[in-house]
Amino acid sequence: MPSYTAPLRDMKFVLQEVLNVGQLTEYESFAEADPDTLDAILEQSGKFSSEVLAPLNVVGDQEGCIRNEDGSVTTPTGFKEAYKQVVENGMMGLAHNPEYGGMGMPGVWHIAAGEMQSASNMAFAMYPGLTNGASKAIEIGGSDEQKNTYLPKMISGEWTGTMNLTEPHCGTDLGLLKTKAVPNADGSYKITGQKIFISAGEHDMAENIIHLCLARIEGAPEGVKGISLFIVPKFKLDADGNPAERNPVTCGALEHKMGIHGNSTCVMNYDEAEGYLIGEENKGLRVMFVMMNRARLDVGMQGLAQSEVAYQNAAAYAKDRLQGRSLTGPKNENGPADPLIVHPDIRRMLLETKAFNEGARALVYWAALLEDMEHVHEDEAFREKCDDYLGLLTPVIKGYLTDKAMATTIDCQQVFGGHGFIEEWGMSQIVRDMRIALIYEGANGVQALDLVGRKLARKGGRALMSLNAEIDAFLGENAEAENVSEFIDGLKDAKQKLTEGTMWLMQNGMTNPDNAGAGSVDYMHMMGLTTLAYMWAKMALVAQAQIDAGTNDEFYKNKIITGRYFVLRMLPMLDAHLAKIKTGAEPLMALDAAAF
Amino acid sequence: MPSYTAPLRDMKFVLQEVLNVGQLTEYESFAEADPDTLDAILEQSGKFSSEVLAPLNVVGDQEGCIRNEDGSVTTPTGFKEAYKQVVENGMMGLAHNPEYGGMGMPGVWHIAAGEMQSASNMAFAMYPGLTNGASKAIEIGGSDEQKNTYLPKMISGEWTGTMNLTEPHCGTDLGLLKTKAVPNADGSYKITGQKIFISAGEHDMAENIIHLCLARIEGAPEGVKGISLFIVPKFKLDADGNPAERNPVTCGALEHKMGIHGNSTCVMNYDEAEGYLIGEENKGLRVMFVMMNRARLDVGMQGLAQSEVAYQNAAAYAKDRLQGRSLTGPKNENGPADPLIVHPDIRRMLLETKAFNEGARALVYWAALLEDMEHVHEDEAFREKCDDYLGLLTPVIKGYLTDKAMATTIDCQQVFGGHGFIEEWGMSQIVRDMRIALIYEGANGVQALDLVGRKLARKGGRALMSLNAEIDAFLGENAEAENVSEFIDGLKDAKQKLTEGTMWLMQNGMTNPDNAGAGSVDYMHMMGLTTLAYMWAKMALVAQAQIDAGTNDEFYKNKIITGRYFVLRMLPMLDAHLAKIKTGAEPLMALDAAAF
Repeated sequence: MPSYTAPLRDMKFVLQEVLNVGQLTEYESFAEADPDTLDAILEQSGKFSSEVLAPLNVVGDQEGCIRNEDGSVTTPTGFKEAYKQVVENGMMGLAHNPEYGGMGMPGVWHIAAGEMQSASNMAFAMYPGLTNGASKAIEIGGSDEQKNTYLPKMISGEWTGTMNLTEPHCGTDLGLLKTKAVPNADGSYKITGQKIFISAGEHDMAENIIHLCLARIEGAPEGVKGISLFIVPKFKLDADGNPAERNPVTCGALEHKMGIHGNSTCVMNYDEAEGYLIGEENKGLRVMFVMMNRARLDVGMQGLAQSEVAYQNAAAYAKDRLQGRSLTGPKNENGPADPLIVHPDIRRMLLETKAFNEGARALVYWAALLEDMEHVHEDEAFREKCDDYLGLLTPVIKGYLTDKAMATTIDCQQVFGGHGFIEEWGMSQIVRDMRIALIYEGANGVQALDLVGRKLARKGGRALMSLNAEIDAFLGENAEAENVSEFIDGLKDAKQKLTEGTMWLMQNGMTNPDNAGAGSVDYMHMMGLTTLAYMWAKMALVAQAQIDAGTNDEFYKNKIITGRYFVLRMLPMLDAHLAKIKTGAEPLMALDAAAF
Repeated sequence: MPSYTAPLRDMKFVLQEVLNVGQLTEYESFAEADPDTLDAILEQSGKFSSEVLAPLNVVGDQEGCIRNEDGSVTTPTGFKEAYKQVVENGMMGLAHNPEYGGMGMPGVWHIAAGEMQSASNMAFAMYPGLTNGASKAIEIGGSDEQKNTYLPKMISGEWTGTMNLTEPHCGTDLGLLKTKAVPNADGSYKITGQKIFISAGEHDMAENIIHLCLARIEGAPEGVKGISLFIVPKFKLDADGNPAERNPVTCGALEHKMGIHGNSTCVMNYDEAEGYLIGEENKGLRVMFVMMNRARLDVGMQGLAQSEVAYQNAAAYAKDRLQGRSLTGPKNENGPADPLIVHPDIRRMLLETKAFNEGARALVYWAALLEDMEHVHEDEAFREKCDDYLGLLTPVIKGYLTDKAMATTIDCQQVFGGHGFIEEWGMSQIVRDMRIALIYEGANGVQALDLVGRKLARKGGRALMSLNAEIDAFLGENAEAENVSEFIDGLKDAKQKLTEGTMWLMQNGMTNPDNAGAGSVDYMHMMGLTTLAYMWAKMALVAQAQIDAGTNDEFYKNKIITGRYFVLRMLPMLDAHLAKIKTGAEPLMALDAAAF
């Protein structure tokens, strides 16, 4: 069974030494977000994840969720009790608005804590994760009354939340959705239809479930312009705001999935369920997409998290398992064989994962910090820059990080040889759980289209120009930095190739949009590699400064070694992606559909 | 549930038009291997695979195998009956020696039929597949008496076979194995020990199971030099050669696996089981490895097979599922949305799979033809060339094709969006079943080491020199060929880069073998891409000749289009692999083991 130990040292390095999240205390709303409190929260969250959530991970996988005859759902043994601890320890509200009972800490703290929960038990972590998403949507779009009614209970975790978008015939293309909303005399609506793939749609861990549901009000325009967002509680509330009458929104079936068995993925049937409009009629997607963008950072974080737990267990196995001899002569002469870790190809798989994880952690936390800054920074231009960056980074974090984490978790499974294929060792579950992250919250191909089709062009391409300027300034400042020239050169080269890819897409995507579509995933990977190169260059500077100052802490030396792997062995992929982009749409579109 | 239709047109194109397997009829032993018989066998095998095996695939996944209290194993519903058909229709013995009841047809026919069985039901196809392997080993190393005793029943399929290598503490490193053989007075041995991961180790489909087991005779040298190979039948035979007394070789447990649930993967306990030495004492690995090399081609074929069935279902889904609109304007104006196939990125995933599959099919069949030629060709130098090529191609086919097929099956699953994650759609099973092929019969990293550490250097590097000369001659002959210059140039470029990689490994692997280990997987991928480029150039020439001759068959036009995708969008990976190889071992070995 895989174990998990929160990588606290690396998390703190990124948060404090690289990103200096302590700077947030300068802003009134984060005045209490001091490093000591952060440390305490990371320690507590790490302990809970290792000791409570990790042991339940395999239980969730093996037992799955059970739909009972009455339509209720029983979660795996121990989930309910663990969730109770989440609620009681106030872990849900870490980054939420104090006005509704949250702790008001930075989102970047929340994502670090979330990484631990996801790494130790992805299926479990989705219950609080989706509740966060749903409460975010209510906070963004809801009326004061709605906020006061639902947020305190959701932020405490007493009630959980869900997002109901997908229907059997439409996932990506929400314009096709059919779920119907008919106005009642009292201003509420009767919601009727079927939603599928609803994570945490029904379960036994909370006294109420607040469904956020996209539906079409009778007479609304067709397509995406006629979609509204509704709150549909499992139990309607009485005059005191307590759960009372059962609303006819029920779990019709549980999906049988490749992974995340511990999360209840429901078919939800709405049978004239009472719902309450959030915001304006027909403007439901706007609210939903603000929330979805936030959720996409979380999915990228899930990729990092699965890659981290896969790495930890593969590294431990590689150091422990004796098999074969080093190519350069025995390293464990008194033993029957050398540990796997002596083999360069085993190290390749581990370092590919480690170098990716550490870069990805910096990137995800940076994005979360940008989001915090976007809320608190006094300068509007700076806030806009944060928003621009987030626009670019969100599809990259969602799409590239999960694509790559799929590959690294498979590599880590490979380190185990035959045991990797056996469920008891747990590596299979990591790979199976990981798989969904490439699909949900917008499939990775859709993320790539969002990047090249929308985000690059938005506001005249301002976001990328701004990021490029920042990287150029960074390169200029550090052009002469000693002992990190490989990192600086690697970033410079990456930026140049990314720019070449951007230019090609701009020149050729205008005349034929399929040219942009054809290169979109390769471009997303290029931007992923380039932004990781930026993160690695920043980390290398910090680490090298410590080394230059005479530190004895091996952490910094190892950080440089790991980063060099990234620069030397991961950045070469840029050339392949660029060459593919430049072939354009023709090789893809030439084949008649019937010939596939 | 996924369906499967044998790609007969493409198979025949490769077999007849590209490889001209009809040439085999010139040799006495294959005099009856005429094209009409081949067609009939392909048709029959395709029908059986689509109609009988494919529907059982999901049954096998869901039911799995059950170990009963008495240690017997029950296979999934329908497996026994399907296997009976295999036996009754004489499908097992297709390429086996007529002396023992085989049909004596070429191995290249067998692998084409095997592709169909694997694609439709990989877990099922392993039962006959392992029996083939075991009977091959007896044919290679057994005495005449052993051959006469076991082969007729195994070749008919009445008895099945297994390979028992792995023990709990050793997989790759067989030198560590502990299973003990103690001589009996009658020349037989008592075998005691535990084997794990034994596919088809116990089941209810045949009246006897012939285990081939590696063990160490008391007093034998340590390490790989003291390993002998034994026949250990589940039931000892009576004087008439019929199964009689139960031998104490029993299934102690079934493994719980990520995939291939329909195959019984057993822990086998040998408790003084009676075994019979194959060949000489302490020379067991020699026989085993001849057989394993053959089995590795089959594993590469399994990769192709899973990628083919994944492709077929993803392509069908992409043509059927309506979601979103083409970037260049609606293509299905009267429908609510366009089919997925209009999207360039969906086509990218499908074409990556299609172009890989068609190239891989040619490569696998070519290798099988080389093996046939090695047996029948009159010229010793030619036979040696076949052996040289097989030495090079085997690790590439096993390692590269399964690595790549893992990626393509995941891509095909991605085409299904959320439905890809739901077990009922069957794409998850394809990915889960596929996963083992990267591990068994020697993990892919071990294949890569075999390639760079042994196969490149063998006989002074003769094999690669010979293959290079063949490719050079091919390039020379076709330098002026019209309309296929992209294929010729692509191959030329690939060969040049592969040569650069080879030179680097030779120059730097001598001084430090870890340099070879560090680049081995990248090099294996380079050779995979280069040999596929060779196959694609050959296929393009055949197709273009038909086009030039005025054919109306769209097959040839589509072949060129698919091949162009390979050249333009898959070959660019060569640069990335080459750059990685050239970074050498240092970035991998610099990190202390303790720092992982």
